[in-house]
Amino acid sequence: MTASPVLWILGSDSDLPHIEPGLEALRALDIGYDVRIMSAHRTPDDVEAVVSSARSDGVKVICAVAGGAAHLPGVVAARTTLPVVGVPVPSNLSGGLDSLLSIAQMPGGIPVGTMGSNKGGGKNAGLFAAAILGVSDTRVAEALSTYREKMAEGVRKKDAAVRASV
Amino acid sequence: MTASPVLWILGSDSDLPHIEPGLEALRALDIGYDVRIMSAHRTPDDVEAVVSSARSDGVKVICAVAGGAAHLPGVVAARTTLPVVGVPVPSNLSGGLDSLLSIAQMPGGIPVGTMGSNKGGGKNAGLFAAAILGVSDTRVAEALSTYREKMAEGVRKKDAAVRASV
Amino acid sequence: MTASPVLWILGSDSDLPHIEPGLEALRALDIGYDVRIMSAHRTPDDVEAVVSSARSDGVKVICAVAGGAAHLPGVVAARTTLPVVGVPVPSNLSGGLDSLLSIAQMPGGIPVGTMGSNKGGGKNAGLFAAAILGVSDTRVAEALSTYREKMAEGVRKKDAAVRASV
Amino acid sequence: MTASPVLWILGSDSDLPHIEPGLEALRALDIGYDVRIMSAHRTPDDVEAVVSSARSDGVKVICAVAGGAAHLPGVVAARTTLPVVGVPVPSNLSGGLDSLLSIAQMPGGIPVGTMGSNKGGGKNAGLFAAAILGVSDTRVAEALSTYREKMAEGVRKKDAAVRASV
Amino acid sequence: MTASPVLWILGSDSDLPHIEPGLEALRALDIGYDVRIMSAHRTPDDVEAVVSSARSDGVKVICAVAGGAAHLPGVVAARTTLPVVGVPVPSNLSGGLDSLLSIAQMPGGIPVGTMGSNKGGGKNAGLFAAAILGVSDTRVAEALSTYREKMAEGVRKKDAAVRASV
Amino acid sequence: MTASPVLWILGSDSDLPHIEPGLEALRALDIGYDVRIMSAHRTPDDVEAVVSSARSDGVKVICAVAGGAAHLPGVVAARTTLPVVGVPVPSNLSGGLDSLLSIAQMPGGIPVGTMGSNKGGGKNAGLFAAAILGVSDTRVAEALSTYREKMAEGVRKKDAAVRASV
Amino acid sequence: MTASPVLWILGSDSDLPHIEPGLEALRALDIGYDVRIMSAHRTPDDVEAVVSSARSDGVKVICAVAGGAAHLPGVVAARTTLPVVGVPVPSNLSGGLDSLLSIAQMPGGIPVGTMGSNKGGGKNAGLFAAAILGVSDTRVAEALSTYREKMAEGVRKKDAAVRASV
Amino acid sequence: MTASPVLWILGSDSDLPHIEPGLEALRALDIGYDVRIMSAHRTPDDVEAVVSSARSDGVKVICAVAGGAAHLPGVVAARTTLPVVGVPVPSNLSGGLDSLLSIAQMPGGIPVGTMGSNKGGGKNAGLFAAAILGVSDTRVAEALSTYREKMAEGVRKKDAAVRASV
Repeated sequence: MTASPVLWILGSDSDLPHIEPGLEALRALDIGYDVRIMSAHRTPDDVEAVVSSARSDGVKVICAVAGGAAHLPGVVAARTTLPVVGVPVPSNLSGGLDSLLSIAQMPGGIPVGTMGSNKGGGKNAGLFAAAILGVSDTRVAEALSTYREKMAEGVRKKDAAVRASV
Repeated sequence: MTASPVLWILGSDSDLPHIEPGLEALRALDIGYDVRIMSAHRTPDDVEAVVSSARSDGVKVICAVAGGAAHLPGVVAARTTLPVVGVPVPSNLSGGLDSLLSIAQMPGGIPVGTMGSNKGGGKNAGLFAAAILGVSDTRVAEALSTYREKMAEGVRKKDAAVRASV
Repeated sequence: MTASPVLWILGSDSDLPHIEPGLEALRALDIGYDVRIMSAHRTPDDVEAVVSSARSDGVKVICAVAGGAAHLPGVVAARTTLPVVGVPVPSNLSGGLDSLLSIAQMPGGIPVGTMGSNKGGGKNAGLFAAAILGVSDTRVAEALSTYREKMAEGVRKKDAAVRASV
Repeated sequence: MTASPVLWILGSDSDLPHIEPGLEALRALDIGYDVRIMSAHRTPDDVEAVVSSARSDGVKVICAVAGGAAHLPGVVAARTTLPVVGVPVPSNLSGGLDSLLSIAQMPGGIPVGTMGSNKGGGKNAGLFAAAILGVSDTRVAEALSTYREKMAEGVRKKDAAVRASV
Repeated sequence: MTASPVLWILGSDSDLPHIEPGLEALRALDIGYDVRIMSAHRTPDDVEAVVSSARSDGVKVICAVAGGAAHLPGVVAARTTLPVVGVPVPSNLSGGLDSLLSIAQMPGGIPVGTMGSNKGGGKNAGLFAAAILGVSDTRVAEALSTYREKMAEGVRKKDAAVRASV
Repeated sequence: MTASPVLWILGSDSDLPHIEPGLEALRALDIGYDVRIMSAHRTPDDVEAVVSSARSDGVKVICAVAGGAAHLPGVVAARTTLPVVGVPVPSNLSGGLDSLLSIAQMPGGIPVGTMGSNKGGGKNAGLFAAAILGVSDTRVAEALSTYREKMAEGVRKKDAAVRASV
Repeated sequence: MTASPVLWILGSDSDLPHIEPGLEALRALDIGYDVRIMSAHRTPDDVEAVVSSARSDGVKVICAVAGGAAHLPGVVAARTTLPVVGVPVPSNLSGGLDSLLSIAQMPGGIPVGTMGSNKGGGKNAGLFAAAILGVSDTRVAEALSTYREKMAEGVRKKDAAVRASV
Repeated sequence: MTASPVLWILGSDSDLPHIEPGLEALRALDIGYDVRIMSAHRTPDDVEAVVSSARSDGVKVICAVAGGAAHLPGVVAARTTLPVVGVPVPSNLSGGLDSLLSIAQMPGGIPVGTMGSNKGGGKNAGLFAAAILGVSDTRVAEALSTYREKMAEGVRKKDAAVRASV
């Protein structure tokens, strides 16, 4: 039980910038995480090995990140009963419609909690993982409330600036 | 703290059949739930009141179900830091593409874990709620493992039947 | 009753350039407006407070501007019986198809008058607000007629220029 | 000035069932309306004649209803500065995506307030017309508030029924 | 009867570059053309006047060019029984899917011969107009055959170049 | 020169009902036609033979009808400089979006005048063929004007009926 | 080496009717096949075991059939270097657009030869498997040629029937 | 029998960069190939001549590459019973949705093994051609296994680098 509670698995290291805001959110909430590059298609055995032992290793939520056919989140979900958060990476096809459908349209029995294929998806994956941890961890729940307050303050500052300028 | 751990909020009672497989899954896993009909647009105060106090009432996961513009899951997520599972109901527009996009494409900051707009989405919402509970509840985690084993057995039986007949 | 007749609510200040042509149209028509930055998800109480009192404050039309899941126009419409004009901001997904569907596909009972997710949408929101005011305000109706005449003249000038050059 | 305040123009009489809920809403709100069948493509002169004189005839809002290429709302809007509500009729192509795009994606300068291409679109056109009238007509504004209260009550009754049965 | 046989009507002079290859094709085929900037929504009377008299003026084919809601080709077709070629200009929404659907999905009775919303659409409008003229004009038919031969030679030269280099 | 002026080529005899309204329109306009079943993929030599000699056989317009990948109109257009009208048959994919795109998105050089993938497409193919013939055939042009007048009368009758009943 | 040369793997036995025409085609070509029901998500170990040993068991082509997220073909392709034919089953979302994209949009490195999500996809999978076998098996190549001749004859018979009746 | 086993046919030499990774893969696997530029629409006779004799010339797999209406793969498949791999080139319309649908949605009887319209599609066409050859050529099958091992090593190196840096 030495793993961080949140495990990110990316199909490609080129997806790292997309999830950086999610990693940042976890750091802001003081939640540990690990990041792995593993491919559902090119290193399926590695995915299976890491995911199969994830719960016993101490992982509590897995964020799986992929684009296009984007099988990784479903393949991960097939190997664990931990909650799997799917992050569709924006692609060339309608801005990621393929990524989104390939992750969201899972058959009944194996769910993946899917984020948007927009810019906010990477950040939201981190925050959703935190929300899951917050179900049983009061400190995280309170940190999320504080985080939201800060977001609201940010909106209000912009509102004040616009009202002053328009 | 008297509420069931899983709270379903539906925008319309016509969506009940879509989530019945999810309720059935929760019953099979011996997890309690409540079902409410509340509209993000027609009864927004009711949504706010129920959701704002959900965590203190003992709710741990909220499954929000809606079709078309499908604002309910996002509106619910705006009022709680509990994990919100969004269930897009199939619609007339491309089989629910509007429902899916309206729920999944949340802005950075307020995540919704989105299910598919397919037939399996309602069932998967129940199972995903269970997976979230299973993070800190060993009994649920084990029940999910058993549930998966049964699903695998079901596939294997069909495989045997087909191999015998083809 | 001190508010301007047209109230713009934007989910993000990054959407300001998109609606600037609409603000310009209102200035050309000598119609007052206010601009607020408020988020359906991050500052829902602020939205509710401002919108609930809008009619009594003297607001006559609300233009709500958002992208992606774009719940803001629907959330605004749920809190007022004033006409709400929804402005879908172009996004990465098919150029704003998500924004458009999330705003247009409202359930029966709570309408939002939706503009296009194209470049002209921001301008048209201002003009549509003016058309609504023009129903009972003869000065505005006449200003709109003049505005249209100028547009027609602009087209005719371009026609003449092209005919001269081709 | 003998016309009803709301004028419905339909491209085809086969679209009547789609807008019947909107007519019903107007009757419930005690607002008069007329219904015309006129085609932007087959009887363009009739459309022009009726629309050009609409304001002076006493019309205050025009609801234009069409499917597929659905040019009628835009063609109507080109001939009046009255607010035009566009109602995309569901079609065979993705459930009316063609109708929706053809109505919503107007160029800057000539706005159409577009409803959804879903079942609720016809009803919402009537309610949006009422909201526009309510800007300057206190009786209508109050009738709309009452109408909303009844809708809320309807949702609450269904909620109670579901809570009693589940 | 002094008009050129091919009349181009563009909703905006910003669409000129899109059709330049079509004008070039007509010049190559020695076919005369005129270009007008007229808007279905901003100068509908001008469109009507020019189109209604087009046949008697000697026009034989009209190429109507527009993007987004793109009503111009249909509005033109409503005013003449000459063949109307519709040219959807690429837009922000899926690269012009809105333009294409708004032009192609005409109701039964008023046809528009629609080109693609791709780069080749402007060129093909010119060539299709030529093909229509070629039905009764042997010189044009022969010029088209020669034009095709040159295109084939162009492909064969590229083939030879690639085979030599790969 | 014994062929009818309009040649219909269908990829499958199951598409006959879709074009029956177009055949009916040609009969109403007293224009001759032939109908062939030939497949771009299963009988490509037959397509080539018939199309290559079409002009010299007296054909003036070819209407090519296909669904799904729908290569037939483009394959026909590659073998003749006669105007080719493409008719996308409604399919299971978004109501014929595949058929429409496969026919409309031709590369620059080989145009196909594409009809809608809606119910009206088959009828419009016949009317568009007539419009092409009407460029040089005064009788057809006049028959088309009469046909349009009858359509307008049909709309006006429905208008009168609705006005009497609502 | 006792397996049939073509191995079909279906995610669900409900997909059997979709591929029956493909099985029929293989029988007509006298090519042996096996059919298995195995799920990428519910029985991933079974998929892995069967696919990993497929080549050594004598399998030459695998046809993998799935709908929605449709990960099965990609998951199969990840476990073998045999050619994998992907068969997207029509679904509720745009007639199978999700199935098609989830199978076709594979990342560089692991190809899947994808069929259409239309009715013909199941039949074509069988014929494509045959074409692959025909590369090195003259008997199969000749059987395919005969099969095509019969298809062409079928088209010609329909052509003759239509020409006789129209 | 002097041709290379893999024949690439491109509709345009501008598509060469898209397939360069596929050519590179074939070189890495020591498999010969030829590249031709031939158009289904502009040089149909050339396509027919080359494809009809391909099998007797020693070709074993044809990769056909096209964008937009993208008829080339289907036109090629109509002229041979060799396996045809279709490569949809990314386009302006939703990133190549038109190309993908035009290639994938073939009618029952004439299959095309379709790659993705994404960046990986060109590479995968080469690898899929290799997989087909590997059915009967042990050297190629072994080279493919080695190739995959190298890809897996590449992923593992990136994984190690990310784990070291995050």
